[in-house]
Amino acid sequence: MDKIVSLAKRRGFVFQSSEIYGGLNGCWDYGPLGVELLRNIKDAWWQSMTYREDIEGIDAAILMHPRVWEASGHVSNFTDPMVDCKECKARFRADQVDEAMCGSPAYKGRKAAKCQAEGKFTEARQFNLMFKTFVGPVEDEGAVVYLRPETAQGIFVNFLNVASGSRQKPPFGIAQIGKAFRNEINTKNFLFRTREFEQMEMQFFVKPGTDVEWFEKWRAERMQWFIDLGMTKEKLQWHQHEPDKLAHYAKDAYDIEYQFPFGWGEIEGIHNRSDFDLSQHEKYSGKSMQYFDQESKEKYTPYIIETSAGASRSFMAFLVDAYNEEEAPTADGKSEIRTVLKFHPRLAPTKAAVFPLVNRDGMPEIARNLEADLRPHMRVFYDDGGAVGRRYRRQDEVGTPFCITIDSETLTNQTVTVRERDSMNQERVAISQVRNYLSVSIRS
Amino acid sequence: MDKIVSLAKRRGFVFQSSEIYGGLNGCWDYGPLGVELLRNIKDAWWQSMTYREDIEGIDAAILMHPRVWEASGHVSNFTDPMVDCKECKARFRADQVDEAMCGSPAYKGRKAAKCQAEGKFTEARQFNLMFKTFVGPVEDEGAVVYLRPETAQGIFVNFLNVASGSRQKPPFGIAQIGKAFRNEINTKNFLFRTREFEQMEMQFFVKPGTDVEWFEKWRAERMQWFIDLGMTKEKLQWHQHEPDKLAHYAKDAYDIEYQFPFGWGEIEGIHNRSDFDLSQHEKYSGKSMQYFDQESKEKYTPYIIETSAGASRSFMAFLVDAYNEEEAPTADGKSEIRTVLKFHPRLAPTKAAVFPLVNRDGMPEIARNLEADLRPHMRVFYDDGGAVGRRYRRQDEVGTPFCITIDSETLTNQTVTVRERDSMNQERVAISQVRNYLSVSIRS
Repeated sequence: MDKIVSLAKRRGFVFQSSEIYGGLNGCWDYGPLGVELLRNIKDAWWQSMTYREDIEGIDAAILMHPRVWEASGHVSNFTDPMVDCKECKARFRADQVDEAMCGSPAYKGRKAAKCQAEGKFTEARQFNLMFKTFVGPVEDEGAVVYLRPETAQGIFVNFLNVASGSRQKPPFGIAQIGKAFRNEINTKNFLFRTREFEQMEMQFFVKPGTDVEWFEKWRAERMQWFIDLGMTKEKLQWHQHEPDKLAHYAKDAYDIEYQFPFGWGEIEGIHNRSDFDLSQHEKYSGKSMQYFDQESKEKYTPYIIETSAGASRSFMAFLVDAYNEEEAPTADGKSEIRTVLKFHPRLAPTKAAVFPLVNRDGMPEIARNLEADLRPHMRVFYDDGGAVGRRYRRQDEVGTPFCITIDSETLTNQTVTVRERDSMNQERVAISQVRNYLSVSIRS
Repeated sequence: MDKIVSLAKRRGFVFQSSEIYGGLNGCWDYGPLGVELLRNIKDAWWQSMTYREDIEGIDAAILMHPRVWEASGHVSNFTDPMVDCKECKARFRADQVDEAMCGSPAYKGRKAAKCQAEGKFTEARQFNLMFKTFVGPVEDEGAVVYLRPETAQGIFVNFLNVASGSRQKPPFGIAQIGKAFRNEINTKNFLFRTREFEQMEMQFFVKPGTDVEWFEKWRAERMQWFIDLGMTKEKLQWHQHEPDKLAHYAKDAYDIEYQFPFGWGEIEGIHNRSDFDLSQHEKYSGKSMQYFDQESKEKYTPYIIETSAGASRSFMAFLVDAYNEEEAPTADGKSEIRTVLKFHPRLAPTKAAVFPLVNRDGMPEIARNLEADLRPHMRVFYDDGGAVGRRYRRQDEVGTPFCITIDSETLTNQTVTVRERDSMNQERVAISQVRNYLSVSIRS
């Protein structure tokens, strides 16, 4: 994990937020390559969700009316139990004391559970994880709004607006990508538990009685999405929530977990939320949230099947999964360790690198022309510095699937070598065909 | 304007945030068509900015270290003067009392300036427009963080990380799209002045002395971007900030203004920010923000040319600019008013609609096959209900550039009619050529 975090920082995938000021705990910035990887993940998700007839997209505001969070149960239930050490003032989640270490330098390496046993801890108290702020100049209870702790509620409250504006009827879904915020007591594991994060959620509205079938359909579809984008199948597993541990809104719930270096961690939840959400909003808003089917003349409150993926967590899983170190031959017949990010070409931040072999004989001009031809269609990197082997390694390290070299043969027959990242195979391709060759390879 | 707001709501471009709870002032949700228009605007901007060698993208967190806002001047200067009416408790921006109306029902239609003249107002006091919240469970000064009021600072503090991670040297830029928040005293004009909004900013770092030249380059390029995407040239103008009204960081500043129904309004600012930002962050963080040029052995603090566009405001300008009502002939030889959103095809939320003329003779099957062929490549709408004339009007109203009809001739010669939105011209195209025909037309 340390290697990946260090590569992520050095090559511009992820930086600490406000690093020059010592960072802000639980917040991260995506650098030049990170933002492209994140965009590619989000675009692949968006396309898979909304380029179909039965799902509409929305983009709801982060700030919502505070009653939303009363209806959802977040104001009263979205809490973690917290304890403080009376001596060193360190703060822990009461349900995670067993894994925690004492915060006092005087007791370096000591387990927090021991301090607890010695009676140094306060009683546990409930701490609400929603960030709150105030709309308008007066900081009183009447002005409180929250940063949304999940994007889902923006979908629920827009259910009727979307249905009527798009002439959709159940079964249909609403998809959304957006930021959410949780005031976590303890942040940890790089991008895994952060205070600011991004979600990709799709809520599918169905007629009661058809919910179990749709739940299974979406479970299968969502697992397949990760696999189709190249995630190692063996590192993915289902975790079903035990009946006695189901959230208050859920009828059934499964997580898709990925095997991170620190253990299995949830990257997406698929939940059968029953009619809980719409019923609650009907109760709190006084507006009917029922759907009236013109054809069958039936009126009902739809059940909701939720697929809730973490964009930030997916980013981390794709990054970790792509990371490989392998032995590779060098030009002089020895071998070296090459670090390579084996991203699916659709997800790779840079699609192709263009290398003139030497900086003379017209090679740079040909290389620049090829680069200009490709640029409007994909992200391209141009590199004319140092040995070609080193240039390959730099691109391997950031997962660029294709490197194109302009060499002396190019000058005679207008072909270039295209070198594929994972196999390291090289193929000669006519310059005029390179764009098409790459487009086809990236899409498949 | 009212017509546009009403169309936006009815057809699913923009909804009031948390509408079922009476809305949240100054916040809006993008519906199914709105989110696509917004995405297309942002993608066009992102591509124009980052598909080039001298600009890198980032995506920084909304929550930043509070010292950032001391360095930037926001903690002490980002304020509006505010007055309250002692009688009716209405609140006004002190510098906008002249345009405001009294808030008391007893004085309906009365100008607020009159109340002020009668001595009913409090003295003006400064109100900071940053939303604040608290990290961690204790709500004291030490835990305060702010929702960023602009995205630019996330770029400035990452300047050295990006330069070294991407091997860039000035002149080069960093681009970012993201949400920002301002606790406005009075929100107004639909999406124009809101509390939550999205920005598209690019900060270009240059060697001092070359800043004036780069400033002019970027001014020209940014104006052209709006024009290339179809915005009416005559409704765009430059507004130069008077020397005595320049912001504290600016050496020179121009706004691109669009002529909205309510008057000219800024949709983008281009600013020569000098070395103010990096110098301030150097001072407050204690970290050198200078750039050392390996080749010339020079060390300097880059000047910054900023191009700061509102994504939400651009959305509104593109929507307003696209709106047209025109006389059009009906099938029975009369004429009617057709409402048409003349979006540039790249920006249009839906690229094509597919209509089987009647629901028999195999037409629906052919139409569904064509739809399936197009869907992986673009957003398509399928409609088999009602007269074709009405289907056209529904698509005109949301700006779909191409409508494809499968008719009896299709059954004999495998061609369809493609009808272009603005000219209403119809052309017969072979089914096998439709996808390519559309791709070419959308890109141009």
